[in-house]
Amino acid sequence: MSAEQDLHHIESQIARLVREYCGIPNMDYLGPSLTTVMQGIIDQAAASSEGGKRLRALLTLAAYDCVMRSLHSGDMRPANREAVVTLACALEVFQTAALVHDDIIDESDLRRGKPSAHRALAGLMHSDVDGNGLGIMLGDLLATASIRIAHDATRPLPHAQELLDVFVDTQHDVEIGQVLDVATATIPLNDPAALAKASLDVFRWKTASYTTIAPLHLAFLAAGMAPREAKAHALAIGEPLGVAFQLADDLLDVTGSSKNTGKPIGGDIKEGKRTVLLADLINRADEEQRTDITAIFCAPTRSDEDVDHIIDLYQRTGALDASRDRIRQLWNESCAALGTLGLQPYDEAALRAMCAHFVPSSLVSE
Amino acid sequence: MSAEQDLHHIESQIARLVREYCGIPNMDYLGPSLTTVMQGIIDQAAASSEGGKRLRALLTLAAYDCVMRSLHSGDMRPANREAVVTLACALEVFQTAALVHDDIIDESDLRRGKPSAHRALAGLMHSDVDGNGLGIMLGDLLATASIRIAHDATRPLPHAQELLDVFVDTQHDVEIGQVLDVATATIPLNDPAALAKASLDVFRWKTASYTTIAPLHLAFLAAGMAPREAKAHALAIGEPLGVAFQLADDLLDVTGSSKNTGKPIGGDIKEGKRTVLLADLINRADEEQRTDITAIFCAPTRSDEDVDHIIDLYQRTGALDASRDRIRQLWNESCAALGTLGLQPYDEAALRAMCAHFVPSSLVSE
Repeated sequence: MSAEQDLHHIESQIARLVREYCGIPNMDYLGPSLTTVMQGIIDQAAASSEGGKRLRALLTLAAYDCVMRSLHSGDMRPANREAVVTLACALEVFQTAALVHDDIIDESDLRRGKPSAHRALAGLMHSDVDGNGLGIMLGDLLATASIRIAHDATRPLPHAQELLDVFVDTQHDVEIGQVLDVATATIPLNDPAALAKASLDVFRWKTASYTTIAPLHLAFLAAGMAPREAKAHALAIGEPLGVAFQLADDLLDVTGSSKNTGKPIGGDIKEGKRTVLLADLINRADEEQRTDITAIFCAPTRSDEDVDHIIDLYQRTGALDASRDRIRQLWNESCAALGTLGLQPYDEAALRAMCAHFVPSSLVSE
Repeated sequence: MSAEQDLHHIESQIARLVREYCGIPNMDYLGPSLTTVMQGIIDQAAASSEGGKRLRALLTLAAYDCVMRSLHSGDMRPANREAVVTLACALEVFQTAALVHDDIIDESDLRRGKPSAHRALAGLMHSDVDGNGLGIMLGDLLATASIRIAHDATRPLPHAQELLDVFVDTQHDVEIGQVLDVATATIPLNDPAALAKASLDVFRWKTASYTTIAPLHLAFLAAGMAPREAKAHALAIGEPLGVAFQLADDLLDVTGSSKNTGKPIGGDIKEGKRTVLLADLINRADEEQRTDITAIFCAPTRSDEDVDHIIDLYQRTGALDASRDRIRQLWNESCAALGTLGLQPYDEAALRAMCAHFVPSSLVSE
């Protein structure tokens, strides 16, 4: 299958799986009032699941295919590959669950250009409070659905127990990452080295875990790689790649891009978010600039002028270049680790090309 | 082990498991700011896990012990029983997860006489918004922890795959029940039969699922019973028992009791909650009373006088007696189903005595 066919297949599978695993069979017996709300929740589960780039699912499949071709001479069982597709979809369903809760936590009204789930559900119930309540439940339903999908998918695969462990442990890691993300607000700004280190730690838990490490780990296990080896390779390739991905995302918040749909430029600055980029800025700022930055980021809110001022400082101090250097270095680390997998040249290039989707093309030297 | 020893063992296991499965190893490397928040979350996970009656865990163990003694001549493996204890604890951890989210959804400040999790976390972060955000994450962490605990516990047991399926499917059922519970607010009051039916359906999903059906189902499977048989028995005994349990809880809201710690009398009425009790009341009310009831329950809020008036009507119309009759009938159904398990008389009596803890003693005729 081509990547485009895979993407189409993944998309239709997610739509089917979400409706099947979030719903209940024959719900007509519930009576009209309950059925209306239940149907609204399931429709929202499907709507919230649409529109992702499916990078995580595509990475899972690419890694599985490359390892199977190179290390098992293409001894593919179609049923097993289909199970890996389902497992990859489960990861996307989990991402949707996390985003639904994330939007409630961040009080975001929009997601991918549409009303966020809790806002749409507030409309369904004509109540903001019930919208938040149902949004929490929808996130829970999607998270549980992702585990049920993963459990069913892993049954025919090698290392079924380990696969489910990795899947559920990944959810744990992301949840820890979300907690740490909230906690970064408490990091003082007078120690940029500590801030940079803490932010990078958060990236590992919050983003790399399920964006790059888990797809690779699941794919390697499903391809029959020994558990210890699968984990070591997934970490070595996935951790720098996932951290680079989050750094690039934070960079986009400042530099903007047409790819960055829906999010206004400087959103992280407006929120006063503690990022690696901010640490790099403080590190490079002179005394006067530092006083400015601290005052702006410690204030309860930030004006548009504040945002412009900080963006200007990011450029002038070279903080953006420092971030680009970090991304380039992490990408090189990831590629070096990929080289130790022992794949055939064609497969190694194919997997590297898939990994390259996680970092800005301008920073990736082929 | 005596039930008291079991309870003590369950309590200490829950405390240990929650800290182990919600936390991360060696978190000192995170630096002081992140470690403080992370420690606060783990301490809150432990605090929120304290103080339950552990009825679900005790029912799981009692059902396991009785079936093992009667049907397997007491061929007990201590390691297996300990795994069942852990599985029973996982169910309690899941309940805590559900309660943490429930308190955010219901905007409850108190739980078991202490600040609810999101309120306590708001204190930790000096922010209501961050308290709600961390509360959502804490519920997610506990739910994921419960699945990781269950997955580890099921490994040595018979029917390990089915056990995990039942555990995760139960989470799905409870989440559906919570959605339906929010949806009951949309049921019109002019059709009490439909309201009673819908409320009873909600009880099955929201309460019976994890309170009585899952403990019995997990115990029967762990004791080696065939999956189809285990499910049928668990439903036949557990569904009426769990619905009776929720009916008794709703009754307590009106009649009050010293057991009913922390909740003020008439809380459900104050909230305007649609219950089976309310359906029974509307069913028995005359035209004038019905107009009163509808006006009170359709208003945005209810005064203390409204609450007293409704409680008075509950007594005068015989709605409370109707509810007591329902509970008695469901209890008899549950006991009849228990009788078909084929247990030895001593074990049947022991399991019935455990089940009796789920209904008011005054309504249980031995």
